[in-house]
Amino acid sequence: MDLYKLGLLDALKGIRDRKFSSEDLTRACLARTESLEGKIKAWAWLDPEFTLQCAREADRLLAGGLPTGRLHGIPIGIKDIISTKGMPTSMGSPIYSEHVPSQSATVVQHLQAAGAFVMGKTVTTEFAWRQPGKTHNPWDFGHTPGGSSSGSAAAVAAGYVPAAFGTQTIGSVIRPAAYCGVVGYKPSYGLISRAGVHPLSTTLDHVGIFARSIEDAAYLASCMAGYDSCDPDSLLVNPMQTCSEDAAEWEQPPRLAAIKTPVWDLAGDVQKAMFKKNVEQLAEAGAVVHWVELPKSFDNALDVLRTILFAEGAQIYAPLQEQYPGKTSKPLDLLIENGLKVSAVQYLEALKAAEDMRVQLENIFVGFDGVVTPPATGEAPKTLIDTGDPSFCGIWTLMGVPSVSFPVGHGPNGLPLGLQVIGPYLNDSKALKVAAWCNRQIGFNVGFPLD
Amino acid sequence: MDLYKLGLLDALKGIRDRKFSSEDLTRACLARTESLEGKIKAWAWLDPEFTLQCAREADRLLAGGLPTGRLHGIPIGIKDIISTKGMPTSMGSPIYSEHVPSQSATVVQHLQAAGAFVMGKTVTTEFAWRQPGKTHNPWDFGHTPGGSSSGSAAAVAAGYVPAAFGTQTIGSVIRPAAYCGVVGYKPSYGLISRAGVHPLSTTLDHVGIFARSIEDAAYLASCMAGYDSCDPDSLLVNPMQTCSEDAAEWEQPPRLAAIKTPVWDLAGDVQKAMFKKNVEQLAEAGAVVHWVELPKSFDNALDVLRTILFAEGAQIYAPLQEQYPGKTSKPLDLLIENGLKVSAVQYLEALKAAEDMRVQLENIFVGFDGVVTPPATGEAPKTLIDTGDPSFCGIWTLMGVPSVSFPVGHGPNGLPLGLQVIGPYLNDSKALKVAAWCNRQIGFNVGFPLD
Repeated sequence: MDLYKLGLLDALKGIRDRKFSSEDLTRACLARTESLEGKIKAWAWLDPEFTLQCAREADRLLAGGLPTGRLHGIPIGIKDIISTKGMPTSMGSPIYSEHVPSQSATVVQHLQAAGAFVMGKTVTTEFAWRQPGKTHNPWDFGHTPGGSSSGSAAAVAAGYVPAAFGTQTIGSVIRPAAYCGVVGYKPSYGLISRAGVHPLSTTLDHVGIFARSIEDAAYLASCMAGYDSCDPDSLLVNPMQTCSEDAAEWEQPPRLAAIKTPVWDLAGDVQKAMFKKNVEQLAEAGAVVHWVELPKSFDNALDVLRTILFAEGAQIYAPLQEQYPGKTSKPLDLLIENGLKVSAVQYLEALKAAEDMRVQLENIFVGFDGVVTPPATGEAPKTLIDTGDPSFCGIWTLMGVPSVSFPVGHGPNGLPLGLQVIGPYLNDSKALKVAAWCNRQIGFNVGFPLD
Repeated sequence: MDLYKLGLLDALKGIRDRKFSSEDLTRACLARTESLEGKIKAWAWLDPEFTLQCAREADRLLAGGLPTGRLHGIPIGIKDIISTKGMPTSMGSPIYSEHVPSQSATVVQHLQAAGAFVMGKTVTTEFAWRQPGKTHNPWDFGHTPGGSSSGSAAAVAAGYVPAAFGTQTIGSVIRPAAYCGVVGYKPSYGLISRAGVHPLSTTLDHVGIFARSIEDAAYLASCMAGYDSCDPDSLLVNPMQTCSEDAAEWEQPPRLAAIKTPVWDLAGDVQKAMFKKNVEQLAEAGAVVHWVELPKSFDNALDVLRTILFAEGAQIYAPLQEQYPGKTSKPLDLLIENGLKVSAVQYLEALKAAEDMRVQLENIFVGFDGVVTPPATGEAPKTLIDTGDPSFCGIWTLMGVPSVSFPVGHGPNGLPLGLQVIGPYLNDSKALKVAAWCNRQIGFNVGFPLD
């Protein structure tokens, strides 16, 4: 069988049971990269010899009967705004083209402590904002893979790695996951440390995961979650309580709120029809589904999000813009320009409005196990100068709630469409279980592009 | 003896040992009020019948042999921006002149649960900002008592109550305590809940204590400290670890950093000479005292503090100003005007600068048990339209560190002078013990005004 097609848990099992080695798996991933990377361009940095060394080292430890970690021998793709010690971390910016960090991000340290290794660095938009990188959508090279975690989504979709890390500040995990036909998971705010991840907006930045199944994503998150004193917003929660491995175990049909959100009209007819079909499928499968409208205050959610993001982004990037004239992109310059205009009172009001919305959202989760909503406006648009519209993700990022997207079909252009499931804050376990239940009922297998 | 002269712990002991009743104590406090209040005007609200009822109720419980609390039978003064259920809480503003809260602040609830009761509401400047109330300094009626906790400081100094609550956002506990010749204690940020206390700047607001001895202040704080989910910045710490009752137990001479601070030149010659004399006294008593300069970054500390305070204050008070035209004072209007001009990036930079200073300050506490520094620029100035200069307190409020001030002498005008002792963040116990040690060595008894 083609090892590159394996999901994370299957790959782990195969290595542990000596069906194949980490080197076999890594060679399959490298071969897949070799055959497609000329077209897809998901890697910002890849050193095949280095990854093979890591794989062989994992195999040696296993052969020697030494204790192994929970991710032993698995190659993982890492978005290029996440610091990797001794490996380039260029952030999609010419300013950092020669940058090699002296310390790895906490997530990379966790990953290595669990026995996995960095397969390579995946392409990001410039500083995870709007200026696209070089990556193409594996399902149709003329279309965007989405952003800002473009390379991570494309690498998992193309079969380069069983899983990858990205980040989401508006919709940079869920949207590219939907566009590329993979599972995307943005955990609750504070669950996974952002120490060593280049910030765009500390109130909104989340580390997220791309994988081939919800179970894989849940498992990988459970290896990463936990308190980290180096991230001031990291939470003192028991990761295994909030993000368990048994995502498949939710057996009874959930109570679901189907939410169009205030940005419904931005969705195309294809996405609207697919979402309505999914809601019907879930109701037929036994879920109690109600169409729910978000309270009126959510009409401003994206403005609130932008106010926070622009202000915090300008604080971070205005000094860089000044230090490196002409080295920042137009979209980043515009972010800074907008951010410098935000007053402190507007910023504080935005934080307060977000807090009020969070309280209102909690009321919805009194009556429902999860929310279903579109992850994007439709198929990935046919452009490479824009990474698509993140509007269907922004509300949930602002709320800090766990979000999961999984593929539910192909659109008329042959590109994937997804469904987004949202759970209550800090109940990632429930969000993942509800998403897995929905995924099983819809029962769509996206397959691999170019197969 | 005159019961109104008793400190909190002595009053408690007397009531418990049946030497006198809570009613005796309260009557003595009321008599003292009656004889001086025409000149001092420390009370914003006082109902002698109500307080006597509370005292008699405390006496009944004690006589009945029922379990009593840690503050049983003690009358306490409460600053008039702290909500008291069923009692006026006018905040020094005509907008709230008829305001009677339906719920008490957490500190008032704690106080009542411990068996104490509200003696009355003490005069505050308008919303704890600059516009003075009607209170006069008990040591000389032509002088300010300081602000914003003007009435609380004057009430304790005058013998109206053994202790009172105030709040500090720049220097509103430590400064009036020094001006009025009482002990002032501003605990570590997050130690005492601010739920039900009208905010001025959530990043800077602290509840603080006025008392007649450091031991009294430490004891009262230990009854108040603790986590409160209604204050988002409240800390999950064990109050008894950080703020113990045994403030007198620090026996060995402490290592002290004598710090002039960047605002040294604002101090008058009288304060400068007194501070130098105190440093000499402490060194002679055996303390290891070094003159220490704060790092250069502290030169901006008061600008940083003002940026945060103006922005957060404007967010809170601009809507009120709009709703009640002409009902806000000139100083508050100016705060709002300045605050609306602060940009979000300036605000975020100020928060970051404060955080950087906190880290630098920690280094000082590696080598020293405490910091000694002046609490004010000198004696209370001879004015009633201004509450004096808080510059010597602002740095420590911004740092969130525990601060204690106690009287060390009288100035040439016969008004008290104090010394301020600062401890490391969340080690209030150490700050109080070091302050008590210093207090014992200097050994000054301020006495009572008008005696």
